Amino acid sequence: MFYLVGLGLCDEKDITVRGLEVVKRSSRVYLEAYTSILMVQKERLEAFYGKELILADRDMVETESDKILRDADKEDVALLVVGDPFGATTHTDIILRARSLNIPTRVIHNASIINAVGACGLQLYNFGQTVSLVFFTETWKPDSFYDRVKENMEHGLHTLMLLDIKVKEQSEENLARGKKIYEPPRYMSITQAVSQLAEIEAARQEGILRLDATLAIALSRVGGEDEQRIVCGTLAELLDQPPEVFGEPLHSLVIVGKRLHPLEVQYAGAYAVDPKSWRDVARHVYKCPYPGHRRRKHSPS
Amino acid sequence: MFYLVGLGLCDEKDITVRGLEVVKRSSRVYLEAYTSILMVQKERLEAFYGKELILADRDMVETESDKILRDADKEDVALLVVGDPFGATTHTDIILRARSLNIPTRVIHNASIINAVGACGLQLYNFGQTVSLVFFTETWKPDSFYDRVKENMEHGLHTLMLLDIKVKEQSEENLARGKKIYEPPRYMSITQAVSQLAEIEAARQEGILRLDATLAIALSRVGGEDEQRIVCGTLAELLDQPPEVFGEPLHSLVIVGKRLHPLEVQYAGAYAVDPKSWRDVARHVYKCPYPGHRRRKHSPS
Repeated sequence: MFYLVGLGLCDEKDITVRGLEVVKRSSRVYLEAYTSILMVQKERLEAFYGKELILADRDMVETESDKILRDADKEDVALLVVGDPFGATTHTDIILRARSLNIPTRVIHNASIINAVGACGLQLYNFGQTVSLVFFTETWKPDSFYDRVKENMEHGLHTLMLLDIKVKEQSEENLARGKKIYEPPRYMSITQAVSQLAEIEAARQEGILRLDATLAIALSRVGGEDEQRIVCGTLAELLDQPPEVFGEPLHSLVIVGKRLHPLEVQYAGAYAVDPKSWRDVARHVYKCPYPGHRRRKHSPS
Repeated sequence: MFYLVGLGLCDEKDITVRGLEVVKRSSRVYLEAYTSILMVQKERLEAFYGKELILADRDMVETESDKILRDADKEDVALLVVGDPFGATTHTDIILRARSLNIPTRVIHNASIINAVGACGLQLYNFGQTVSLVFFTETWKPDSFYDRVKENMEHGLHTLMLLDIKVKEQSEENLARGKKIYEPPRYMSITQAVSQLAEIEAARQEGILRLDATLAIALSRVGGEDEQRIVCGTLAELLDQPPEVFGEPLHSLVIVGKRLHPLEVQYAGAYAVDPKSWRDVARHVYKCPYPGHRRRKHSPS
């Protein structure tokens, strides 16, 4: 059997009991090391599992899947994936390949940012499509995310933005020369993400991501024991914060849509950079009063 | 500390290692028993945890949260929730109450149908807002879900529909008489769900949910060891299936939007009622060719 096992979001203890059983009985266990990062090192996972892990980078999962799948018709082989195996990155390719080799497969689900984002207090029901924000370069500033956010905004929906990570990337020079030398990993910060949003808003001028009037929620290490950070404010307020406020990567950013409930404003308000400003924008721009600030009936004014 | 612990989707082994540690060290452990159901009985969980569970029904979680939270400032108390604590039903109320009592809280995330729906092979990126479909009665047939699906469809997005469950509901008569006698639990079947969609389409006639031209994917017991069922087809095809095809509840239904990739058609095609019809509708209505069926360049025709 070939198992795709979700590891959840934070550390070695976020694996499910079922997932742990699979790891322990598998003859080979691969750890996918490119679509996301766990907050702990491979060695800590190995110590916890009592098992050696084989790192599977992008090359391996994409081009050498038969190596991973070898003998999985006769023995148990597991590929460990941060989050859920069908979370932000799907793993349908390797399952399709397994099917074509008549290897039975099974998926062990776990939390991913797609559902754990609910920790910010916004109802998951009211999220639209998820978008990815990639690192801009001097010459490449893809802005299709802006259209996606706009589509969500039209219906009042929130948008989860997954921020780019670059793990085991080669410089253009090394790539051209065929040198397998890799750059240090990079994770997009909240500050960089909001700067990119501001840059595209300034270019497009459609008022979808207004610095002073669009509410956003920054999340990092959701579910982490002491490391989780949730920070809310207008885009301008988030841009003003020193980087340490947002904690360690991975970061995600939620753009708040108009379908907001007073209880959500209250819940997330506990994480606001400036609680008064948070409530004011919710009330005046989003037309969502803070509980206890509802307009009185039969008010004299 | 007050812990909200997600149990995942299927059985006692879907809890995370971290969650299990919390259960074992908590002085009181509540099991929420109304927003969803686990596929196993309370007794099996108790045997696995080596711990007695206190059932918390809707009354208790909503109106007696202080009872659940009692002494959680001095000892560990856990409320177990099927799926993720911020999945389909949020638990922000009880956390807000804990905050107001100065009780520290922590959430242990897990898989929920919101992300595990990816098991059907569709990219989670391309899902719009999630909707709920409630049991229609003779006099009450709420159709706001139709507008939500329409909003998603406009942008080519898929829609996850969560199907109603009725657990510990009172009949109107017993409710009026104040008798705490409860009806047997009911779970909406795929057949009933699709019938309701057809009824609203017939009334609204906007062509959003066309029986012969809208693709849908039925899911049940996602992640279950041998119980998971995924069944794809047009709405009409799903309506034609005998109920046992869809397996045991809980059921969910995905309405497929136009933003479809050939690999997704291939992946989900393995679950199709009629693979040829699945590919034909994908190709001609959704304009998404099956891999290998792409139009040839320089074709003579």
